[in-house]
Amino acid sequence: MAILERSDRGAVARLTLNHPEKLNALSDAMLAALQAEFDSLATDESIRVVIIAGTGKAFCAGHDLKEMTQGRQAEDGGRAYFADLFARCAKVMTAIRTLPQPVIAQPHGIATAAGCQLVASCDMAVAAEGTRFGVNGVNIGLFCSTPMVALSRNIPRKQAFEMLTTGDFIDTTRALELGLINRTVPHEQLEAETDALADKVAAKLGAAVRIGKRAFYDQIEMPLDQAYAYTGEVMVENMLYRDTAEGIAAFLEKRAPEWDQG
Amino acid sequence: MAILERSDRGAVARLTLNHPEKLNALSDAMLAALQAEFDSLATDESIRVVIIAGTGKAFCAGHDLKEMTQGRQAEDGGRAYFADLFARCAKVMTAIRTLPQPVIAQPHGIATAAGCQLVASCDMAVAAEGTRFGVNGVNIGLFCSTPMVALSRNIPRKQAFEMLTTGDFIDTTRALELGLINRTVPHEQLEAETDALADKVAAKLGAAVRIGKRAFYDQIEMPLDQAYAYTGEVMVENMLYRDTAEGIAAFLEKRAPEWDQG
Amino acid sequence: MAILERSDRGAVARLTLNHPEKLNALSDAMLAALQAEFDSLATDESIRVVIIAGTGKAFCAGHDLKEMTQGRQAEDGGRAYFADLFARCAKVMTAIRTLPQPVIAQPHGIATAAGCQLVASCDMAVAAEGTRFGVNGVNIGLFCSTPMVALSRNIPRKQAFEMLTTGDFIDTTRALELGLINRTVPHEQLEAETDALADKVAAKLGAAVRIGKRAFYDQIEMPLDQAYAYTGEVMVENMLYRDTAEGIAAFLEKRAPEWDQG
Repeated sequence: MAILERSDRGAVARLTLNHPEKLNALSDAMLAALQAEFDSLATDESIRVVIIAGTGKAFCAGHDLKEMTQGRQAEDGGRAYFADLFARCAKVMTAIRTLPQPVIAQPHGIATAAGCQLVASCDMAVAAEGTRFGVNGVNIGLFCSTPMVALSRNIPRKQAFEMLTTGDFIDTTRALELGLINRTVPHEQLEAETDALADKVAAKLGAAVRIGKRAFYDQIEMPLDQAYAYTGEVMVENMLYRDTAEGIAAFLEKRAPEWDQG
Repeated sequence: MAILERSDRGAVARLTLNHPEKLNALSDAMLAALQAEFDSLATDESIRVVIIAGTGKAFCAGHDLKEMTQGRQAEDGGRAYFADLFARCAKVMTAIRTLPQPVIAQPHGIATAAGCQLVASCDMAVAAEGTRFGVNGVNIGLFCSTPMVALSRNIPRKQAFEMLTTGDFIDTTRALELGLINRTVPHEQLEAETDALADKVAAKLGAAVRIGKRAFYDQIEMPLDQAYAYTGEVMVENMLYRDTAEGIAAFLEKRAPEWDQG
Repeated sequence: MAILERSDRGAVARLTLNHPEKLNALSDAMLAALQAEFDSLATDESIRVVIIAGTGKAFCAGHDLKEMTQGRQAEDGGRAYFADLFARCAKVMTAIRTLPQPVIAQPHGIATAAGCQLVASCDMAVAAEGTRFGVNGVNIGLFCSTPMVALSRNIPRKQAFEMLTTGDFIDTTRALELGLINRTVPHEQLEAETDALADKVAAKLGAAVRIGKRAFYDQIEMPLDQAYAYTGEVMVENMLYRDTAEGIAAFLEKRAPEWDQG
């Protein structure tokens, strides 16, 4: 078995972190495997939604501390390796945002440090009840500075600050309240529920979801006037898709649309 | 009856979307009527609060899809018309923000697509219990890219993304949790409760509310230091209003202020 | 007794606003005392967490309106004094953010106007049950424009706007929901609970918390790519601390770390 498994079901690709003896840590190999899949998915028009899941007891426990410690043996004490590692990790996290397809995290068990960052970086998240989320690097003297980039764009400031400086975990109830996840279900329904959400999104017009996802993250960092100017152009493009014309016509005629896609 | 009714009650103006057979869609005519009222209100110092309500089964169901479809018959397939339409709509939405008076949305029934954007664009919102909110254009192949500009500045990211890509509605309980609305009341109390909120704000010193509303949206897009430099100047101007001097003096003397305004 | 008391307990410094007959107003003297303590704490490596509390019935009731009113007697009607006052106040509020140590607000009773700003400006807050929070300057004709800078970076927009334009108070339950505070406890447990949170953070590696706090506020105002580039560098620096190497090694060897700090 590979450390990252991919299984496609219709227009939905599920990537499963599969290195349970390492709690699916984001090792060099795991980051490379994720990046390779994202590179491939970025141009794969047959896939309309991506799910990220994990095997074993934990969804993902963050960076591979053993591997990082070995990196210290370089002449520079690991400086160059660490810089490269965090750059590769950031590239993986931002690839989720730039991927044309919506990406759903499917955490269970534990999602800590860069594992929590992975959940926060996804567009949506469905969590198994009982999942615990933390950015607890501070407990071992390593503040979760890169995970907080994603976390602080998901939940309010004081709550993010508390998680980062106390290392305390939050449960799914709290994660739901704060906005870190979209829904939580019993573990035995986790895959089915995530599939259902993925299927719902996959049934939409892919071109509309793609142009919308990109616009979502682009406009969110713009001042209001610029955001409207930009999304206005996006709407015009979207209106001119043949499938959108058909979708609107079908709606007005109270019938199902006949889309060319897929 | 006009498609947009205005009725004033003291310092409170209520604009009522009144095209129920079109579910109060934001047609060319409705957008023009709203813009005309906002242009008029912008210089009307006798009005201190604005309410936006609707007649019929829905508060507002978004753009007028029939009219948009007719726009496709132009030589360019509608491109110029759509660009102009979204620019006009964005102008209406940003006019709510630049209007000197606070604007309260009073949704009931359904607020979808640009109708949900209208709620999100207002400064506050009081909703009838049972109102359903959605940005469901994705269902017909038209991603709600312009509505998301307002929505994503009201509610957390993952929840906005879910609404945009699933097309699912949220109810008033969820809208309240997420921050899209300020309060929800039984439908039979909707107008009275909105009036009460409007009256409370209208009873404040209008000049202070005006300078404060403008500062609210200006500072929110600034880095912290710049925000403090700017709002510090606003506070100085506000302190030098004669009515503010009177308001503070009255407070210190434990009596009601005698304001010159209105 | 001074109007600002400082008492240290191990690595935790508690600053107590102690001018109860003025409801701990942020007078010229109080602002100067706070600034002096922050200036001192900024270079005090023995202190790892700061708490801000208050004596008497209120945590802090905002600016000193009597003193401000006296300022009007200057030839310019107070313009220069007010400009200087708001600049000094903003400097105190931003000093909390730039202070190397996490700062925990410990409000009770009432936190209004600049007193609410003080809570919002702290990194975390533990409130006594029954505390009421408001930005109610609008009631006397002075919109809380500077307090809203901090408030609107803590809670959602429509809820902040409502507080600012109605002058209404919110209770601890609502403050918790909105993100203004981290937790609320019965008044008799307030100090103990705040101490417990402070001690938990103080037990972490101080250098990691310091570099993390600075990065938290720096990255939050950056676009995503820039935020990752910056925090990636922070992580590299953090990895190269001797104490962090020890923390990670201890974790891998399942033993307690032996840190040089403190």
